[in-house]
Amino acid sequence: MAENHTLEKALNMHEIWNGKIETTAKAHVRSREDLAVAYTPGVAEPCKVIAKDPEAAYKYTMKANTVAVVSDGSAVLGLGNIGALAAMPVMEGKAVLFKEFGGVNAVPICLDTQDTEEIIRTVVNLAPAFGGINLEDISAPRCFEVEERLKELLDIPVFHDDQHGTAIVVLAGVINALKVVGKTKENCRVVVNGAGSAGVAITKLLLTYGFSYITMCDINGTICRDSKHLNWMQQKMAEVTNPDQLHGTLADALKGADIFIGVSAPNIVTKEMVASMNSDAILFAMANPVPEIMPDLAKEAGARVVGTGRSDFPNQVNNVIAFPGIFRGALEGRASQITEEMKLAAANAIASLIGENQLSDTNILPEAFDPRVADAVSAAIKALIR
Amino acid sequence: MAENHTLEKALNMHEIWNGKIETTAKAHVRSREDLAVAYTPGVAEPCKVIAKDPEAAYKYTMKANTVAVVSDGSAVLGLGNIGALAAMPVMEGKAVLFKEFGGVNAVPICLDTQDTEEIIRTVVNLAPAFGGINLEDISAPRCFEVEERLKELLDIPVFHDDQHGTAIVVLAGVINALKVVGKTKENCRVVVNGAGSAGVAITKLLLTYGFSYITMCDINGTICRDSKHLNWMQQKMAEVTNPDQLHGTLADALKGADIFIGVSAPNIVTKEMVASMNSDAILFAMANPVPEIMPDLAKEAGARVVGTGRSDFPNQVNNVIAFPGIFRGALEGRASQITEEMKLAAANAIASLIGENQLSDTNILPEAFDPRVADAVSAAIKALIR
Repeated sequence: MAENHTLEKALNMHEIWNGKIETTAKAHVRSREDLAVAYTPGVAEPCKVIAKDPEAAYKYTMKANTVAVVSDGSAVLGLGNIGALAAMPVMEGKAVLFKEFGGVNAVPICLDTQDTEEIIRTVVNLAPAFGGINLEDISAPRCFEVEERLKELLDIPVFHDDQHGTAIVVLAGVINALKVVGKTKENCRVVVNGAGSAGVAITKLLLTYGFSYITMCDINGTICRDSKHLNWMQQKMAEVTNPDQLHGTLADALKGADIFIGVSAPNIVTKEMVASMNSDAILFAMANPVPEIMPDLAKEAGARVVGTGRSDFPNQVNNVIAFPGIFRGALEGRASQITEEMKLAAANAIASLIGENQLSDTNILPEAFDPRVADAVSAAIKALIR
Repeated sequence: MAENHTLEKALNMHEIWNGKIETTAKAHVRSREDLAVAYTPGVAEPCKVIAKDPEAAYKYTMKANTVAVVSDGSAVLGLGNIGALAAMPVMEGKAVLFKEFGGVNAVPICLDTQDTEEIIRTVVNLAPAFGGINLEDISAPRCFEVEERLKELLDIPVFHDDQHGTAIVVLAGVINALKVVGKTKENCRVVVNGAGSAGVAITKLLLTYGFSYITMCDINGTICRDSKHLNWMQQKMAEVTNPDQLHGTLADALKGADIFIGVSAPNIVTKEMVASMNSDAILFAMANPVPEIMPDLAKEAGARVVGTGRSDFPNQVNNVIAFPGIFRGALEGRASQITEEMKLAAANAIASLIGENQLSDTNILPEAFDPRVADAVSAAIKALIR
């Protein structure tokens, strides 16, 4: 990967773009009649209809097909807490992906507050113009409360992509990797390393899918009910994971495990750890840009299927194969929430795009640019509405 | 005006548009390299630069050329307090005008609160993504406090168009109407009827411009220091207007006046009232869609120059000849505020587009579709920055 070239080009291109998205008129105003129809006096007509019937907003306004991409800038990429303004290029990029991959309008909203209550109140206040809220790059455990509360308060879908987008794509990969190695979820032991927003959401979705033996680890080792320094969400997770309450290191947890899922730090998994896993081990090493273990090393140590977050290795776990289709389906079907059932359906839809005869160690997930992806995900979501 | 035809067409077209604006990508993502440049890993580069130098947000993000069009839906057109959702078509229409007339990106933000403090806090929280805030259709006197406080709290331009856009265009019209009738501001008596956001802002700007004899009226007659039922802003205005503290009706105030400016109600000015004004009277009867007095009646009663808010009569007072150029100039010049000086400059720029030899009773303001307007206004604003 011409890393330095890409980074230099990125800075130049961002200056040329000077904003990666823009707002454009669908209603053009080139005559007095245009003005009378799109603005006064004509605009009063849809206003009056919506005032009587709020549902009509989906018929007459952009609410039908527009999401807010909301961040407080507290956990941006691998850069950490860089604040609202510096998070803008990421949120604009996300908005580009929403439109380019899903045909969904998206507006970056970067909040000048990192207070949980203020974030919640601000999003509630600005919600009327939007058909959905995509939360992005908000640090854990705040992100859990922000999302849960907003789901209660709003009647439009609220989705924290760092959690659920990642979880859905990982589950899709796991579904296909199990087919490749010929194992079943009931007999697999899973280790999730990293207990932030993505690690928690992946673990929850795998539990919902039917895995029963999952051990979460963080920098201090396995997460147990009596672990110290756990936040409230990690404590909740300790109740439903690590069935034997194994105390130990990541290396201890990996002995005999079938699946490793890393959303943690570079190079922390060794060949010895991989070799200690069960045969036909599956690894998703998603630390970015440097994975928990490089795919070639993992393979040398006996791993059968290896995925990463990178586009220059096989089996890329990329959220862009999930969120555009999820929101398109939710908006078109007028879902009021993205349910657990929808997340499972999205993962299954993604997995099923790789036909049985195409499946292999190095082909478990569709490409980001596979044009079937957003349609398939969107259809799976819509099929579950009402 | 085919009024019913227009209204019916407006409803149909709003359904076809299903949102009058959309977000579109300037950065297209069609290959892995595109993705690496516009999103991860490349996007981290502008993020890091902005984290160190917040000013760089204007170089690398859409903040450079994007305003939020913010309303709480409390005073929408002539429809009143119809709420956030029903205000959406108007705010989308405004966003269309920003882009079509000024080349400025605009995002409608309709707030699910009408509490002054909540509005202020919400706008402060969402400000980082935007280069300016256009307040719209917020009821008086709340709009005054919201705007003043936001100007103190934010370092980007905050502009309540119902106040200042209207005031600027009225002043432009007054400047040219005085030339037509050969009077000077020093010797004119002005009556402003309507003491809401527009009436207050017009009066303030005319005072700043140099008119010294202005009487404001509301539904109870002339506004005096001892009038009852005044809000805090009207009380402030009573201190600086109505120099003789005349108590009486609108009809009393109009006797001998040179200029009438109405932002009030249909058909409340009679021919007799116009006849009682000074010779060569100037009337801006801007109640919409039915003015305070119809232009033909006013002319019959002796008025010399008559303007309205309607496009089917001469001398239309239309905010679209002000706000797009004002924000374009403010954004391009990186103004932190729209100052009083800028408002006067914008009015002069608009007025000067009608050459001395083109000026007439029925030609005091440029057309909304005159392509010179936004450039002239924008240049006038930029000339005053730094």
